[in-house]
Amino acid sequence: MRELIESRRDRYLEWLRQACSIPSLAGNPEGLQAMVAWLEGTLGPLGAATERLTFDSAPDVLLAHLGSGERTVLVYDHYDVQPVDPVSLWKKDPFVPALENGLLYARGVADNKGDLVARLAAFEVYRDHFGELPVRLKLLIEGEEEVGSPSFPEVVERYADKLGADGCIWEGAGVNHAGAPELVFGAKGLAYLELVCSGLNDDQHSSVAVYAPSPVWRLVEALATLRDVDGRVLVDGFYEDVLAPTPEDLTALETLPFDEEAEKQRLGISEFVGGASGLELLTRAHFEPTCNIAGIHAGFTVPGGSKTVLPKQALAKLDLRLVPEQVPEDIVAKIRAHLKAHDFGDISVTTLGLEHPARSPMDSLIGRAATIACEPVYDLPPAVSPLMIATGPMHPIAHFLGIPTVSPAGVCRPDSKIHAPNENVAVTDFLDTIEYTIEWIRAFATV
Amino acid sequence: MRELIESRRDRYLEWLRQACSIPSLAGNPEGLQAMVAWLEGTLGPLGAATERLTFDSAPDVLLAHLGSGERTVLVYDHYDVQPVDPVSLWKKDPFVPALENGLLYARGVADNKGDLVARLAAFEVYRDHFGELPVRLKLLIEGEEEVGSPSFPEVVERYADKLGADGCIWEGAGVNHAGAPELVFGAKGLAYLELVCSGLNDDQHSSVAVYAPSPVWRLVEALATLRDVDGRVLVDGFYEDVLAPTPEDLTALETLPFDEEAEKQRLGISEFVGGASGLELLTRAHFEPTCNIAGIHAGFTVPGGSKTVLPKQALAKLDLRLVPEQVPEDIVAKIRAHLKAHDFGDISVTTLGLEHPARSPMDSLIGRAATIACEPVYDLPPAVSPLMIATGPMHPIAHFLGIPTVSPAGVCRPDSKIHAPNENVAVTDFLDTIEYTIEWIRAFATV
Repeated sequence: MRELIESRRDRYLEWLRQACSIPSLAGNPEGLQAMVAWLEGTLGPLGAATERLTFDSAPDVLLAHLGSGERTVLVYDHYDVQPVDPVSLWKKDPFVPALENGLLYARGVADNKGDLVARLAAFEVYRDHFGELPVRLKLLIEGEEEVGSPSFPEVVERYADKLGADGCIWEGAGVNHAGAPELVFGAKGLAYLELVCSGLNDDQHSSVAVYAPSPVWRLVEALATLRDVDGRVLVDGFYEDVLAPTPEDLTALETLPFDEEAEKQRLGISEFVGGASGLELLTRAHFEPTCNIAGIHAGFTVPGGSKTVLPKQALAKLDLRLVPEQVPEDIVAKIRAHLKAHDFGDISVTTLGLEHPARSPMDSLIGRAATIACEPVYDLPPAVSPLMIATGPMHPIAHFLGIPTVSPAGVCRPDSKIHAPNENVAVTDFLDTIEYTIEWIRAFATV
Repeated sequence: MRELIESRRDRYLEWLRQACSIPSLAGNPEGLQAMVAWLEGTLGPLGAATERLTFDSAPDVLLAHLGSGERTVLVYDHYDVQPVDPVSLWKKDPFVPALENGLLYARGVADNKGDLVARLAAFEVYRDHFGELPVRLKLLIEGEEEVGSPSFPEVVERYADKLGADGCIWEGAGVNHAGAPELVFGAKGLAYLELVCSGLNDDQHSSVAVYAPSPVWRLVEALATLRDVDGRVLVDGFYEDVLAPTPEDLTALETLPFDEEAEKQRLGISEFVGGASGLELLTRAHFEPTCNIAGIHAGFTVPGGSKTVLPKQALAKLDLRLVPEQVPEDIVAKIRAHLKAHDFGDISVTTLGLEHPARSPMDSLIGRAATIACEPVYDLPPAVSPLMIATGPMHPIAHFLGIPTVSPAGVCRPDSKIHAPNENVAVTDFLDTIEYTIEWIRAFATV
């Protein structure tokens, strides 16, 4: 079957080029619509029945039905891509895919069009090699993942009766530094907040700071109450819903490859937070929430320049990565209560994003199928992670619908530059993902 | 004599227009040179001997000698002006002086060309009315006051033997809200610092904040150690050189008019720091140092936007207003020591400006002359302040040379918009300042 895939290399690369030529960016409705149309046009000849799940505040979500069988698998992908700024750092036009030294460069080629097109190709190869898919497959493709999937929970709720399944394949994790396929069974959640401290009509000459209160100092003081210097969050009840890792989680983490020295070198640091390493480091990374300052601004900030000003206002962005079973809305409420209790109730808190953390069991049918399927495709055994340290909108599927979910091996490598200029995918990884898709479909039917 | 001044109103307004037409801005050497030439051209016919005090790093400082007598007075002014940005907020071209409703609008007309030209006019009126000035007068005019007079201390040191005097008239305070002439006997000092906390090679996806240290948090935590929430600076020894106000200072402050409600309304606050009012407020304002955050920046700060980033670096600007006898270099050393002692020795501290605080006695010859001279000119008795809450380069004269110094009544009103668009001076205040200059010259000769 690999031979069949290899023989169609140019055909599927052409599909991928076509998909990556469409600028399906947030804020470009034509590009998003063109991408949906391209998907419909490609899925039709594969025998898929497609429908659009419409929702007022979101680009159309595409749902395609293929195959038949006892078991049903839901596959989640997204057809939108990240912005291309700064364009000047791209070696080529981000929407004119370019093949160079076995790598295809284009915006979205790794996140997530490479996985998506590999799946379409797999459906065709499967059909031509084996016949109809041996499972009922529902391919769900949304169009606003890159802006935080704000409507996705409601879309899933509204169309819940169409989305039932025995397991879910989630977008795609990738292949790690060592070349091992990754299997990830959850995602952290997120609360993204903007804090603003005001208090003066206008910026003032700083001489009056001797009697006029400073909104900047006030914000700094408020922030300093949120965390201790070891990074532990001091907000009352912040950790009360945090689940400890299970023995199975720890076993998975123990075998998860993580090159600490390489990561330190990449970051430019001499040690990780708290001096952690080994299992302690990985446990923290996967099972601890964060409270990060993504930005802070007030007053005059030109490096090397002087201006004696008392700024009228100060702003900070907080991004908190949450772990199961923390509830984003609850965390925001606790932060508000904390500020109020510490006499900082005047600081405004605006919620700019909420995402629930998600976890699925590792021994589900789909988890086992995704694991078994690695063997014929990859040289190394899978690197299994209970949770990714980043965030994804997995919660509506894994928790609201209760479908066991895994983010499996895919086209991404650590150096695929997702969300960055010169995003790329290796052609061999693309072909591997086609093969791997066929393997997990086969495994899921029989496991 | 007032009649003589009034009769020459147009002549001296024309001088002021000429002076204000010259863009003597930092970074415009032609404008600065043209201003020196204009001053030389105007001082010559007044019988002044002028010389340029040259210094490698500074525009020429002009020194003019007039009059004769037992006593010598040094008069300090500056011929440079603030930048005009944002030009769009000016009603007229800032270098085309415009008279409207008794106000002359132009950049520099209040700070400090109005006082400077009024003094030149006074010399002429005095000569034509009384003859030669009854004191030896040294008019010292520098050209980089608006960028913090970085070379002035060294200029004074180098040319000390030319600058000796029995008293110094400093630039000009002004006339307060109530219409009372102001006399100010000192200025706060300044230490302006840039703090930078680095720690990562690049901005990172914020998911790694779970194990990568955050330079922003580190800077926030370091800043939070510098002050308590009441604004008291926690740096060891910060207050040890602060002089308490004398009974005479408190007496002066007791009679200093300060409209607390108007100031609160202007600032948009409900109470001053610590709830202070009355004498307590004025004492704090004049005799307490500050530690102000003039700016802070890191990461992503677009209001309403979200970006999940762990910033690689954070920057803060601190401006500290210092009071006698705090020494700016010593304060900087103490802040460095504080950061080191609190384990923040990795945060870089760059000094961007240092200015010593200054105090002169209120009962000096020049202080008494400036006080006496108010009576014939102004309806209200002078508002005497031991120290201005802002900063000026008074220290080299008042302390290094040890010349008793006073910043007297002048053309400025609280709404003269110095350093801002539409800077202006009332023609009547300009004429008052001519008259007042003649009066303090007469008083200084005989007091």
